[in-house]
Amino acid sequence: MSTTTIKAYGAKSKTADLTPLDIERRAVGKDDIKIDITYCGVCHSDIHTVRNDWGGSSYPVVPGHEIIGHVTEVGADVKNFSVGDVVGVGCMVDSCQTCSSCQKDLEQFCENGATFTYNSPNKHIEGTQTYGGYSTSVVVDQKFVLSVPKNLDEAAAAPLLCAGITTWSPLSHWNVKKGDKVGVIGLGGLGHMGVKFANALGAHVVMITTSPEKGKDAKALGAHEVLVSKNDDEMEAHQGSFDFILNTIPVGHNMDPYINLLKVDATMVLVGAVEPMDGFHGGGLIMGRKHVAGSLIGGIKETQEMLDFCGEHDITSDIELIDMQDINTAYERVTNSDVKYRFVIDMKSLKS
Amino acid sequence: MSTTTIKAYGAKSKTADLTPLDIERRAVGKDDIKIDITYCGVCHSDIHTVRNDWGGSSYPVVPGHEIIGHVTEVGADVKNFSVGDVVGVGCMVDSCQTCSSCQKDLEQFCENGATFTYNSPNKHIEGTQTYGGYSTSVVVDQKFVLSVPKNLDEAAAAPLLCAGITTWSPLSHWNVKKGDKVGVIGLGGLGHMGVKFANALGAHVVMITTSPEKGKDAKALGAHEVLVSKNDDEMEAHQGSFDFILNTIPVGHNMDPYINLLKVDATMVLVGAVEPMDGFHGGGLIMGRKHVAGSLIGGIKETQEMLDFCGEHDITSDIELIDMQDINTAYERVTNSDVKYRFVIDMKSLKS
Repeated sequence: MSTTTIKAYGAKSKTADLTPLDIERRAVGKDDIKIDITYCGVCHSDIHTVRNDWGGSSYPVVPGHEIIGHVTEVGADVKNFSVGDVVGVGCMVDSCQTCSSCQKDLEQFCENGATFTYNSPNKHIEGTQTYGGYSTSVVVDQKFVLSVPKNLDEAAAAPLLCAGITTWSPLSHWNVKKGDKVGVIGLGGLGHMGVKFANALGAHVVMITTSPEKGKDAKALGAHEVLVSKNDDEMEAHQGSFDFILNTIPVGHNMDPYINLLKVDATMVLVGAVEPMDGFHGGGLIMGRKHVAGSLIGGIKETQEMLDFCGEHDITSDIELIDMQDINTAYERVTNSDVKYRFVIDMKSLKS
Repeated sequence: MSTTTIKAYGAKSKTADLTPLDIERRAVGKDDIKIDITYCGVCHSDIHTVRNDWGGSSYPVVPGHEIIGHVTEVGADVKNFSVGDVVGVGCMVDSCQTCSSCQKDLEQFCENGATFTYNSPNKHIEGTQTYGGYSTSVVVDQKFVLSVPKNLDEAAAAPLLCAGITTWSPLSHWNVKKGDKVGVIGLGGLGHMGVKFANALGAHVVMITTSPEKGKDAKALGAHEVLVSKNDDEMEAHQGSFDFILNTIPVGHNMDPYINLLKVDATMVLVGAVEPMDGFHGGGLIMGRKHVAGSLIGGIKETQEMLDFCGEHDITSDIELIDMQDINTAYERVTNSDVKYRFVIDMKSLKS
């Protein structure tokens, strides 16, 4: 099969900076869509994969799974998309489509292993892995291409493809609704989307943070209240009062103070800490039939629903636009939580 | 208010053996039922409270919350019960009846604090706490008295009031049904009831145990399969295959191997470990949208449903009957997990 060489940015080892490199993209098959990438968000997972924090990274790693672009070519069997459409690609580019998870629109839990947008085996180009959106173009099966509402700013829509769906999916799956008291722990790339979504769903949104100084920003994003988790009196006053808590803390931590905030039968969902967690007290769950769960991005159908909701409610991410050449500095700043709230790469910079 | 002095067994300090003592029972009020206690189960919680393991014990502690007896007197407003009825009393004898938990038949989570059968403040006899079923009789509000199906053996029915409802409630609440693959971790007082209930509900029941020698007993109780949790190959073979896991381990432990057994969207419920748990890996919940929850006994309505189910399916506990005077030896044996599967005190021994 013929391939096309394109420009990309990637890391050649876990200690290397990201540098320009050339990668191959497959020719457009009958179910494929070729996308000229205009913007790509910078997700903390990109950094984890570059650094091999989770193991299993193959080099070069070309990260990027918050992809926005324009359709430049469609395969013979492609429906619903035409040249010129503004589209998105998130964390997955393929899955088996036959297992029980895929049948339930939960491709992220494909029992045969979803093909992730980067660092998964590439079924189409033997001996290589998938390369992500830090590149000028990508070819993706139509089932994994999302339609981006026209009213959304393209650059600011990019983070919806990962940070957006990661926070939308639990809020939607656990049926957060008008009047619910919803806590969002942590105000970063994920948390700031969680606040926007929970607000748009009509919930009473409480930003739960260690940093009182984040309160003003959280309120500007849609939080109705700020709860400083280091303040024991405040935590005590809120105990047993939350219908749902979205926990975006990206590192291992002690869940006990947060479990204590939940109502009877309520759930806290972890979306950030793909990490060893601290011990917790079993009694915290037992006394009140409380739940702790996890959630991973979302399925393709749900991602489209999220984008449509964003279109209706004019929701995008708060971003800082950078050039591709600034990526290594951006990684340092993400690692230091120094971004409000998501870097997005303007892919013009790679093409010029 | 006049009281009656009756015989009981209790501990005068956290290090003391249980010894005979006299306690007061209130006179029968208009909503009260007086019960002549025939049998009382021995629950691990009794020992924890005697030893003050959870803090907050007031002495003397008279334990016992798996009470079976005969109605000997009813108050003027008592409906549904008559002298001579075989009845049960479980872990609670009162609650506020007005909070949102009570309104939802979840008296165990009463926001104003349920009155537990022992070691709760006694509203009726100032300055004392409630005394449990290690005694000859008890006076209980009709709302907290359960009807025991006539076909059940009275002694063997006693543990249903705590071990029974503790395992029934999560199986019922999480809607375990025919064909589900259900794991029960731990084969003790709780676990053996979990196996019986899950089997009767039509589930494919897997006993998960560290002890291969428990396999035969588990199968006799209704398990269809035995999974030895120390066997990595067996654990690997079962990964991602369970619809529900009932975790009866009574001490803190590492949940990771069990979380790994759950299907996408499935739940493991802790019922035993009112204890600090080990750390776990957040990724275990995130990869598969898995849930860990807790469950505490059950509400009164649910307890009656459980007893009715037991009547229909002829389910009771496997017990070893003891005299009241054997209680200290029994405590040692419970602590050493040396009982199949529940001690029940024949209260004739205290009356003679």
